[in-house]
Amino acid sequence: MDEFVLAVDLGGTNLRMAVVGRDGGIIHRERCPTPHTGGAEAIVSAIANLAQKCRSAVDGNSLSRSLAIAAPVIMKLAEHRIDSAPNLPMLNGTDLAGELNRKLNVDVVLENDATAAAIGEHWLGASRGFDSSICVTLGTGVGGGIILHGKPLRGPDGTAGEIGHICVEPNGKACGCGSWGCLEQYASATAVVRMARELASGPSSLLKYTVDLTAKDVFEAALKGDATAIEAFKRMGYYLGLALAGLANVLNPEVIVIAGGMAAAWDAFIEETRIQIKTRAFREPADRVKLVRAELGDDAGILGVASLALLKSYERVDQVDPLQ
Amino acid sequence: MDEFVLAVDLGGTNLRMAVVGRDGGIIHRERCPTPHTGGAEAIVSAIANLAQKCRSAVDGNSLSRSLAIAAPVIMKLAEHRIDSAPNLPMLNGTDLAGELNRKLNVDVVLENDATAAAIGEHWLGASRGFDSSICVTLGTGVGGGIILHGKPLRGPDGTAGEIGHICVEPNGKACGCGSWGCLEQYASATAVVRMARELASGPSSLLKYTVDLTAKDVFEAALKGDATAIEAFKRMGYYLGLALAGLANVLNPEVIVIAGGMAAAWDAFIEETRIQIKTRAFREPADRVKLVRAELGDDAGILGVASLALLKSYERVDQVDPLQ
Repeated sequence: MDEFVLAVDLGGTNLRMAVVGRDGGIIHRERCPTPHTGGAEAIVSAIANLAQKCRSAVDGNSLSRSLAIAAPVIMKLAEHRIDSAPNLPMLNGTDLAGELNRKLNVDVVLENDATAAAIGEHWLGASRGFDSSICVTLGTGVGGGIILHGKPLRGPDGTAGEIGHICVEPNGKACGCGSWGCLEQYASATAVVRMARELASGPSSLLKYTVDLTAKDVFEAALKGDATAIEAFKRMGYYLGLALAGLANVLNPEVIVIAGGMAAAWDAFIEETRIQIKTRAFREPADRVKLVRAELGDDAGILGVASLALLKSYERVDQVDPLQ
Repeated sequence: MDEFVLAVDLGGTNLRMAVVGRDGGIIHRERCPTPHTGGAEAIVSAIANLAQKCRSAVDGNSLSRSLAIAAPVIMKLAEHRIDSAPNLPMLNGTDLAGELNRKLNVDVVLENDATAAAIGEHWLGASRGFDSSICVTLGTGVGGGIILHGKPLRGPDGTAGEIGHICVEPNGKACGCGSWGCLEQYASATAVVRMARELASGPSSLLKYTVDLTAKDVFEAALKGDATAIEAFKRMGYYLGLALAGLANVLNPEVIVIAGGMAAAWDAFIEETRIQIKTRAFREPADRVKLVRAELGDDAGILGVASLALLKSYERVDQVDPLQ
């Protein structure tokens, strides 16, 4: 009884659901494209549909009455309503958890996807066994989640861990968040493509990709020895290291986990990141902090929210307003 | 019985001791210059001497067997030995707490001074009643202490909270910590003097102070409308705001307390700091975070460590290694 939980990764492109056991084992999966028309109702219906498929595929009696969702959303302490969801704007201001609760008669746990990934890696991945960790998700943007004293840090507005918007260049590139010079503008996939283009003055192998250049193209060019591509990743590693050196001093974490699609380009940027942490952070936190690749891939968020529904250890203690 | 505790602020210049009650009331004070010859032994003797004076001045039976010390030192988790003490180099590598314990037969609580100030302001000062806060100490250098979920964040190496060494200018001024472009190089008293000098090209009222210019001189010139002095403080406020905007996103604190000698120049820099937080941080954490002046002055550290000895709520839970 209650041995398994339904866990969802609600991404901008795909909606993925898994049936997760207490040991983190996934016994069934379903997926569909994330609906971008029909508003929040279409998303609720899509989740309900996948849940039905999962229930049919496994022994329904073994499922708990919890549904856990990792999504690119920000929510305030002790409120259900989603404050902002830049990649899923139809969810702005909605009570997704409440609507799913009413439709499916389940308890819903909703967590920011980057925090969920940090929890997942802490439970079963690259930061397991460590009391304090930072999980940096390098993708189209730069996200982050923080674990301190074994618990996720969310903050009263749910924005804690947003390390992609630390300023690394005071007069740098304008950022979608409204600031400028944010880490996201120097360490995301988008940033690597832009920096490669900026660097590609004169003849370069990269110029032939001018129209549809991707971070993967830049990485492959770097592997082939293209100087422009190598330099673009070096800059990315430099700025990532500059931001992480500050966090090593300020949070003194035991481990920093690099996750997201850009982690695949690890070899092209990590050396410069290590150099910046080593030369900029205090000796003790720089010597202590391990810089490692994520181990759970796309399942980090699903396993992270599954643990919220399955385990006491990550419970949302900070959902209780301490000022009440 | 046990109603009062001896609390010490061990500074680079002065050694101050106070007898502190459970309500934070100070019923007696002693002080002497911090001895800079005679090594750690001279400091132990000076503390013992002040403790004797305090015991004589108040009812010795009402004193607990605890001695609490705030000092500019960094210590590892679960170790007594002081890792580094840049301003009191005679303490490097010593077991100050152990030596005092043996000499005075008291339990010794030793805490980093910036963290102690954050705890003091949280107990009785500008951040009381808030669950999460950052206390920035702006003096000769820039220190910091962080309170999350009502507890101080120390980290396994004791460096957590060192926000003075966040990079705010990638290619900026070399810092004593070995990095360059650190906040301390743009927001300390030393930094304001340097920036005023750098800006004072051409005729300026400040030039007459060229030899012994102090941050106080620059502040007084700013009050009198000196454009160079005003600009120096504006730059200070800019960089402080840039760093605090990042921390507002990453830690989502309810309040940021500005402490230290430079807090006296509040009016000269705080407007620019507010502007940077408002324009750079996400809307929710920027709207939430209160930026306030410290309320406890020089007693913040003494009251902070006194609370560690007197109260359970700030106990050093992270001195127990979670990996054991």
